[in-house]
Amino acid sequence: MKLYTYFRSSASYRVRIALNLKGLDAEQLVVNLLKGEQSGEYKNINPQGLLPTLITDEGQALTQSLAVMEFLEETHPEPGLLPADAIGKARVRTLALAIACDISPLNNLGILKYLTSTLNASEEQKTKWIQYWIANGFTALEKMLESTAGVFSYGDNPTMADCCLVPQVFNAKRFECDLTPYPTIMRIFETCEALPAFQAAHPANQPDAV
Amino acid sequence: MKLYTYFRSSASYRVRIALNLKGLDAEQLVVNLLKGEQSGEYKNINPQGLLPTLITDEGQALTQSLAVMEFLEETHPEPGLLPADAIGKARVRTLALAIACDISPLNNLGILKYLTSTLNASEEQKTKWIQYWIANGFTALEKMLESTAGVFSYGDNPTMADCCLVPQVFNAKRFECDLTPYPTIMRIFETCEALPAFQAAHPANQPDAV
Repeated sequence: MKLYTYFRSSASYRVRIALNLKGLDAEQLVVNLLKGEQSGEYKNINPQGLLPTLITDEGQALTQSLAVMEFLEETHPEPGLLPADAIGKARVRTLALAIACDISPLNNLGILKYLTSTLNASEEQKTKWIQYWIANGFTALEKMLESTAGVFSYGDNPTMADCCLVPQVFNAKRFECDLTPYPTIMRIFETCEALPAFQAAHPANQPDAV
Repeated sequence: MKLYTYFRSSASYRVRIALNLKGLDAEQLVVNLLKGEQSGEYKNINPQGLLPTLITDEGQALTQSLAVMEFLEETHPEPGLLPADAIGKARVRTLALAIACDISPLNNLGILKYLTSTLNASEEQKTKWIQYWIANGFTALEKMLESTAGVFSYGDNPTMADCCLVPQVFNAKRFECDLTPYPTIMRIFETCEALPAFQAAHPANQPDAV
């Protein structure tokens, strides 16, 4: 398999964690977002111009990190990144979607560019926007995790929810969000960060890290 | 089952379609977003204060529309809203996520309120923001559908992708987006709109429609 990735892309980071948890290898193909490489020929592979894209062994290009993780789960079921029962699956997907739909997209490069160039937001306003939506999402997530978490976001094994949570906390730290109101999130984050699968997926440990 | 819903909530609309396609009944419990009812006691049921929430027959509260649809798919598999094969499933989920992550959340009430109240955006700037992100998402979606669509978004049967596409087009029309650049999206939309399951889920046909 091959993975189009960028070291600091949250969605790429999610899939890198999932691949590592399942013990799967994928050759990394770097798309440098800051250089705008997502807007060039890459759009022929992923019309959204977003990361990541997984190229399967059969040459199929799969996009959207949650769909890619579900694909890995179906084609390489062990270890499972979803619980066995329908309610458990729903809980994990809900946590993952609460990050992937309601926090992460609000702070991506395209949005931030629109804020500053079209709406003339200042750098300070941009930072406040990022911090506001992370705080908004994390407040809800902390509450949700109170009823689902064990050692990890859902029970005692890593799931897709943790694959989404860790990159989002990484981003929150990068933008100097106050994380003290979220003890459950931070406990799970630190538990994950101690695992080799999460460490190897960390932005700082990617070949394109700068 | 019960469904916390609001007639014009896109995510509620998605789940109403899915329930109808599967021939399932759910009592509707209205949460009036314009009256701010999502910020009150409802947050004890859904900490995100978003719609919808499905209450299962066993009394479990499930949130995030895509997680809810996956739950319905697992517990009531027929008719399937996902194809049988892993690549097909990935394609449908990708289309659904491209709408649910990268278009819909950018235009929800909370974001629009932040734009106008915190960033002092004018009504015109707000409308341009909505139209911009719909156009941005639909441009990619149109391209993606060129390789996946049959009669519907993926092949010849309705899937979760169509459950997401129709409410997003409804919103686009409401905000007077120019939809002429998206003939595939509009063809699929019109095909879906002719089906009773989609008609019965339409905002205008809900008990709380005003």
